[in-house]
Amino acid sequence: MLLPQIKGPNDLKTLSVDELVSLSGEIRQFLIETISRTGGHLASNLGVVELTIALHYAYNSPKDKMIFDVGHQAYVHKILTGRMDKFDTLKKYKGLSGFVKRNESEHDVWEAGHSSTSLSAAMGMAYARDLKGEDNKVIAIIGDGALTGGMAFEALNHIGHEQKKLMVILNDNEMSIAPNVGAMHNYLSKIRSDRHYLKAKDEVELVLRKIPAIGGTLAKSAGRLKDSLKYMMVPGVLFEELGFTYLGPVDGHDMSKLIETFRQADNVNGPVFVHVLTTKGKGYKPAEADSFKWHGISPYKIESGQVLKSVGNPMYTDVFGETLIELAREDKRIVAVTPAMPGGSGLIPFSKEFPERMVDVGIAEQHAATMCAALAMEGLKPVFAVYSTFMQRAYDQIVHDICRHNANVMFAIDRAGFVGSDGETHQGVYDVAFLRHIPNIVVMMPKDENELRHMMKTALDYNEGPIAYRYPRLNGLGVPLDPELKSIPIGSWETLRQGENYAIIAAGPMIPIAEEAAELLKREGMQVSVINARFFKPLDQEMLVSLHANDTKMIVLEEASAAGSLGSSILEFYSEAGLYDTKIHIMGIPDEFIEHGSVKEQREEVGLTVQAVIEEMRKLKLEFAYDLPKTSTPS
Amino acid sequence: MLLPQIKGPNDLKTLSVDELVSLSGEIRQFLIETISRTGGHLASNLGVVELTIALHYAYNSPKDKMIFDVGHQAYVHKILTGRMDKFDTLKKYKGLSGFVKRNESEHDVWEAGHSSTSLSAAMGMAYARDLKGEDNKVIAIIGDGALTGGMAFEALNHIGHEQKKLMVILNDNEMSIAPNVGAMHNYLSKIRSDRHYLKAKDEVELVLRKIPAIGGTLAKSAGRLKDSLKYMMVPGVLFEELGFTYLGPVDGHDMSKLIETFRQADNVNGPVFVHVLTTKGKGYKPAEADSFKWHGISPYKIESGQVLKSVGNPMYTDVFGETLIELAREDKRIVAVTPAMPGGSGLIPFSKEFPERMVDVGIAEQHAATMCAALAMEGLKPVFAVYSTFMQRAYDQIVHDICRHNANVMFAIDRAGFVGSDGETHQGVYDVAFLRHIPNIVVMMPKDENELRHMMKTALDYNEGPIAYRYPRLNGLGVPLDPELKSIPIGSWETLRQGENYAIIAAGPMIPIAEEAAELLKREGMQVSVINARFFKPLDQEMLVSLHANDTKMIVLEEASAAGSLGSSILEFYSEAGLYDTKIHIMGIPDEFIEHGSVKEQREEVGLTVQAVIEEMRKLKLEFAYDLPKTSTPS
Repeated sequence: MLLPQIKGPNDLKTLSVDELVSLSGEIRQFLIETISRTGGHLASNLGVVELTIALHYAYNSPKDKMIFDVGHQAYVHKILTGRMDKFDTLKKYKGLSGFVKRNESEHDVWEAGHSSTSLSAAMGMAYARDLKGEDNKVIAIIGDGALTGGMAFEALNHIGHEQKKLMVILNDNEMSIAPNVGAMHNYLSKIRSDRHYLKAKDEVELVLRKIPAIGGTLAKSAGRLKDSLKYMMVPGVLFEELGFTYLGPVDGHDMSKLIETFRQADNVNGPVFVHVLTTKGKGYKPAEADSFKWHGISPYKIESGQVLKSVGNPMYTDVFGETLIELAREDKRIVAVTPAMPGGSGLIPFSKEFPERMVDVGIAEQHAATMCAALAMEGLKPVFAVYSTFMQRAYDQIVHDICRHNANVMFAIDRAGFVGSDGETHQGVYDVAFLRHIPNIVVMMPKDENELRHMMKTALDYNEGPIAYRYPRLNGLGVPLDPELKSIPIGSWETLRQGENYAIIAAGPMIPIAEEAAELLKREGMQVSVINARFFKPLDQEMLVSLHANDTKMIVLEEASAAGSLGSSILEFYSEAGLYDTKIHIMGIPDEFIEHGSVKEQREEVGLTVQAVIEEMRKLKLEFAYDLPKTSTPS
Repeated sequence: MLLPQIKGPNDLKTLSVDELVSLSGEIRQFLIETISRTGGHLASNLGVVELTIALHYAYNSPKDKMIFDVGHQAYVHKILTGRMDKFDTLKKYKGLSGFVKRNESEHDVWEAGHSSTSLSAAMGMAYARDLKGEDNKVIAIIGDGALTGGMAFEALNHIGHEQKKLMVILNDNEMSIAPNVGAMHNYLSKIRSDRHYLKAKDEVELVLRKIPAIGGTLAKSAGRLKDSLKYMMVPGVLFEELGFTYLGPVDGHDMSKLIETFRQADNVNGPVFVHVLTTKGKGYKPAEADSFKWHGISPYKIESGQVLKSVGNPMYTDVFGETLIELAREDKRIVAVTPAMPGGSGLIPFSKEFPERMVDVGIAEQHAATMCAALAMEGLKPVFAVYSTFMQRAYDQIVHDICRHNANVMFAIDRAGFVGSDGETHQGVYDVAFLRHIPNIVVMMPKDENELRHMMKTALDYNEGPIAYRYPRLNGLGVPLDPELKSIPIGSWETLRQGENYAIIAAGPMIPIAEEAAELLKREGMQVSVINARFFKPLDQEMLVSLHANDTKMIVLEEASAAGSLGSSILEFYSEAGLYDTKIHIMGIPDEFIEHGSVKEQREEVGLTVQAVIEEMRKLKLEFAYDLPKTSTPS
């Protein structure tokens, strides 16, 4: 066993290539066993075992910067940098993060979670290195899926122009999270399939080098001929045209070839593009066979690959997917648009029944949003199905192309609120705050999966502009589903429990917490209303006026940034209406990034619990005053 | 004169090519004369005269959809679609918009203002067309600068994959707003310079067609040879690899060639990429000679090209640019990053003194933001100089890469508030609302150009995370500039005028309005404080507590979205502190998009005026209650 001796990257340097190969096997075994208990991103990590070992063998981290795009494929990197013994806490509260994490190790130089940021990070680090006169290497490792994100192209365009010395490693496994789409993918496939033509490459390059340097028109012709022959022999001409030296494709499971290629790359001045072919799930048959399913996986039985699923009510995501099919059968205008998340968004069944009405644009939230605007302007009813956190990428397009055009785009915002083990990069806690100040949009959240269905109908019936429904990454409440779907009046809230002088205004999964708190407070003699604030925009102004008229003290309970979300909007309403004496306390997410853990642990950390609601309501009764808010910035 | 007879595109169809050429001359003359009085985007429009005429001649608008990227190059389109007589109102309040505008004409099918949206729009329209079984053409006209924006690449990648029939016209004038940067630009330049090699193209294509269809390995070799020869003869191989049929480059000032190329394009099934070479400013010598200066121009003398500048105090933009040089001379860590706006951001002098510390990334706000995070993490102090409206493009990168990493990035947010004649797509009115809920960031706004300088020093001295200063597209107040720069304590406001029981909390250019209102109210016996709320985040909590303790009635006056901005933040503070009886009225921008006009007219439209402040203060005195807020959505 070599693995127990590896306490840091330096321990690799003395190993032979054969030993590095053995180490790969040990690491694979470790991953398969550990993740069978913890769950996690198995397939992508099995794919980069040799690549990660070869990198840490060939380069000197942390002096040389290794930037993992997205960062969920950095488990091997974590193992090699002294964190093997923490893997049983993977993605657990206060445990090892599922992503690269700067506070875990000096070897973690760049954090992410959203895709396609690594090339920009690499460019920044290379630029800084040159300005400071240093000489470290900068290496970005990016998947073929992430490469299609617009900002990756922006970075390629800039890097190719500036000619900074840095290395981009394309980890090409023919998959992003879903099967890849896009012309870039087709292009890469062509390279893969052409591999056997490359044998003659070295010889031809020799010939090319012998073409003498000549001047005048002839030189141009010769140059053109060279280019043409290069195109014949160099598969990555597209990257060459963008200013990179292309190396590859190289077998990402061949340790010697990888190390040799890195040595070649080191000799290039300027940016190098190393095209590495890997197999997702490599070394574990079930994962190799279905790398999509095994991208992010729950605990499983190693021998059979059987996933140990927790049984529960249907997920909101699945109810969305099934209801969309029902609606689409009746209404031909519906088109579903997803940025590379057909599975995660519950749209696989829809795509099977309506293949021509299912648009997977790849990792391209900006394009998706703007395309939705155009679809809507042509009379269709597009549903932009997107995770709250990734919707951030399309903020400008939502403002400029959807809301400004007042286009009838429907947003299905999944993973709204805390998302649990993926942690701070994936929390869906800003969408209310970044949507509600945009003119023309309606924003809803259902109290249960049945109301989600009615909201989908509401959105479909609504033809006066953009409208969004957001729902959590959770199982539904198991309520019965009404067969007939009806529109909910826009801006109408619902009183779920009638109290006196006290109210909790809540939405979505905060409602059961509100109801339990109200029930417990009843025993103390407080009659607390529970209001389903199912519209974040517009507000139910009548109900708010009536609450004020009854001198109600209110708590707004929301699993969203306390700054700028529902509570804030209610305060604005009362201020604008001149109802200055309203007593409202907002319970939301404080001004900080909340790390990974279970949703329950995250709620406890920020005080979105029954007990906390009860305590705040008691304070409100006693009119506790003056408790300076926390802020993440010094004051 | 042909021009007076052209009331719509149909009037072009009967003209001969020679007449179309004559018409081009007349339109050029009209543009040069009109814009000399109104100001506007002269150079880009002079460049597309023939292109726009040829399009309207060859296609049937509005059935065929013409989508102009950004849309400031659509003046010729406006002239050809019946709006010639409105040009004297160009960019004026209630007058003709400087951009494509759907409510102006049925021929305006897509509005923009931000770049790089046209390909996504075209894809949406083509997708909808096919689903509906219609047969119109879809044509996107995009500049070479806009092509480098990430979302344009996302769209190319998707279009090339889906193979929808549509046409992308690359209007290649070798310029975005500033001289182009980027590998794509270098690639296009190579094509331009290689034009004389294209003579043989037709013959070679004939040969290629004669290679017989064969099977087996030989077929692959033959295919490869074909590809190789194609590469030799087809300059746009990069676009061909992405799934487009490439046509061009074609001279964009040759009417017959343009029309002929469109006919060729019509015969292609699937997406076509037509590469058109144009000259910015074509036909007007001063504009041809300096198309950068003449991109967007103030009124000028036609004969000399002398621009009629209004004399005024230095612009905030220029004070920023000059102060940055002062600071950068002392502090080597400063690097300036701009997304294609070195001129607009006042950075030209900086780029001359510090060329190696000036990074123009092209139209690539996402990449710029993330690169800044990496620069900061390597110990530098990057300034991301960006217009408020374009900063929207980087929202996710600000959350995920800058603020989550708590990176020491400085933001110079220009064009904050109303921007005047560019109108609703360019208003800088959301940045406060979309920044203040992000953890770790500090947001400032100076009351005058002298305070801007101190804020820049403050940002440089601050090393605890991201920090932003925002300033308007206006002349400064003409105040003296302190030679010595000092840090302002983070979160400290300033009392500019001490009153009793009443206060106006304002920032930036709202402060002179507040001061004038306070002065006038004094005559009515109201003593109104004026407070410079120079930090939007964090707030000056001590001052807010003290205002409450003195039972002060407050107006928050802000040139930003009333929803979610400074006023909202203050309401949250008082609610959190349990100070429920505070009387605050927010005067900000209502929940709608505000169209073009002068800044003064825009302020009058939304009530950000001295008179409106006086009236609201009187109401506050009388405790007027209950006036339902306006909302852009039905309630």
